[in-house]
Amino acid sequence: MIAVGIDIGGTNIKLGLVDKNAGFLEKTSFSTEARKGKVYMFDKIGEKIHELLAEYPQTPVGIGVGIPGMVSLDRSTVKSPPNLPGWSIENVAHEIQNRIDLPCVIENDANVAALGSAFYGAGKPYDHFIMLTLGTGVGGGIVIGKKLYRGTTGAAAELGHVLIDYKGAESNSNTRGGIEAYLGQRFISRRAAAEIKKHPDNPLYKQFSSDFNELEPLDLTQAANKGNTLAIEILANAGEMLGYAIVNYIHMLDIRKIVLSGGVANAGKWIIEPAKKSALNYLMPPFHDDFEIIIERLGNDAAMLGAAALAFEVFS
Amino acid sequence: MIAVGIDIGGTNIKLGLVDKNAGFLEKTSFSTEARKGKVYMFDKIGEKIHELLAEYPQTPVGIGVGIPGMVSLDRSTVKSPPNLPGWSIENVAHEIQNRIDLPCVIENDANVAALGSAFYGAGKPYDHFIMLTLGTGVGGGIVIGKKLYRGTTGAAAELGHVLIDYKGAESNSNTRGGIEAYLGQRFISRRAAAEIKKHPDNPLYKQFSSDFNELEPLDLTQAANKGNTLAIEILANAGEMLGYAIVNYIHMLDIRKIVLSGGVANAGKWIIEPAKKSALNYLMPPFHDDFEIIIERLGNDAAMLGAAALAFEVFS
Repeated sequence: MIAVGIDIGGTNIKLGLVDKNAGFLEKTSFSTEARKGKVYMFDKIGEKIHELLAEYPQTPVGIGVGIPGMVSLDRSTVKSPPNLPGWSIENVAHEIQNRIDLPCVIENDANVAALGSAFYGAGKPYDHFIMLTLGTGVGGGIVIGKKLYRGTTGAAAELGHVLIDYKGAESNSNTRGGIEAYLGQRFISRRAAAEIKKHPDNPLYKQFSSDFNELEPLDLTQAANKGNTLAIEILANAGEMLGYAIVNYIHMLDIRKIVLSGGVANAGKWIIEPAKKSALNYLMPPFHDDFEIIIERLGNDAAMLGAAALAFEVFS
Repeated sequence: MIAVGIDIGGTNIKLGLVDKNAGFLEKTSFSTEARKGKVYMFDKIGEKIHELLAEYPQTPVGIGVGIPGMVSLDRSTVKSPPNLPGWSIENVAHEIQNRIDLPCVIENDANVAALGSAFYGAGKPYDHFIMLTLGTGVGGGIVIGKKLYRGTTGAAAELGHVLIDYKGAESNSNTRGGIEAYLGQRFISRRAAAEIKKHPDNPLYKQFSSDFNELEPLDLTQAANKGNTLAIEILANAGEMLGYAIVNYIHMLDIRKIVLSGGVANAGKWIIEPAKKSALNYLMPPFHDDFEIIIERLGNDAAMLGAAALAFEVFS
């Protein structure tokens, strides 16, 4: 059984043809070029699907799409996706179905990434887990019984905006003190730059003094790997905050497997060990059993694979 | 169709015979007398059920029990219930079934109170809602599709221990900054006493100066109703904290109906209005629609009714 998985992002659109058991048969991607408009974009998605399918005799069960933003409960429509300027409410499923005669279902990108993990990644051994995507923002997906928990309108799992300090730092949205404000790429970089500016003797100061905006979480990880104690401290602080957020997820949901994905997750142990420590410090004892933080290695493929997994779930 | 609902508490044990549609047919209660031991208690529960049933020709579908503490996933056993000294792991369902030939199911007391609300109280109009029981501690229940969300081990919905300030006040458990530390009866009373001691001119000072331990949340509500601005401030502060916790519940679960039960909920508008304000301040805009805080008026009956509702769900 095969399905098409699509990951629509502000920079790139990725398409994959996925076999239910074997994973990717083929994948491709192209630049989103959002300024060229929606019609151009949907036409190009249609073309690329036709190209992908041309060499395969099997008919896919359908198409799954991951997209940033809030997706309607019927999984057809997205509302004001960030990074796709000019979009208001768009029936993405309808647009794609019009261009290729296959059923189409859409879902929030962090949610499909969680499904990708559930069926093709680190989440495979678990029926229930919580996935955090630590990217520019912090997205979340709650997997219960190998399905997404979606809430009453499809907007559940805004895990980056579960606050750990009501007096805390503002994030992009109108919320304060959520972990997006501590672990979102932009935020962690900004905090790090502020710290490093106070330490002109630190190698990171020399590396970025010409433009601190160039500093990315990966630079912190690399510096930490070389033993830079300031970088280690900055990442540990972010990890500590992550641990408090995990306490909240687990106390609410009683799901003890936490899967981390996204660029910032590459900091690995520099974030995970402090997160474990602060989580165990505040978790009520009965929740300590089976608690684990796991890194997802699928990277950018998670959303495409999860979009296909959703198509298998819905159309087969 | 009828069922028996039992609410086992540290002080009293309440039993009700419940008709699925009409609610209570009869109820009774007796003193727990935990110091007399478990056998005495279970024997007495058995006797009381026999008495309750004697006058009714119908056979109940089964017995539901609400009990403090963590209940096993199979809903037979409770682990170290607070307020029942000397209990470790007890198969309550088994003990009761042994004394009366009916199937028995047990569940955490805050959880069954939520079910009581779902079928017989303020939660009736809603398929999905979050219930908070503001008592000595703060308990929670998550109702999804008229059923309890239980998590991977049955321990979900520790809503009083979802933190809103990782540097915040300690509560009874090893967690900090959960709303139990702000709205639990003991905590709100202690905070109020500390505030009132600073204001010897306040009527509450005169009322409680001989023993500030006597002060209860109800006294604050009564003072607030009389226009005591200090009491209004203290309750508003607790309400503000509640609002932040609600932000966390809604951002995670996308469930926008919050039902409040328990003694502290009697403070009504003095808590609810500030809670609404702080919640709306931090909730992401798409979550504002349909957001509502509702007071449950079933009081102590909620757990008994919910325990019976669980018996209907499981045994009919």
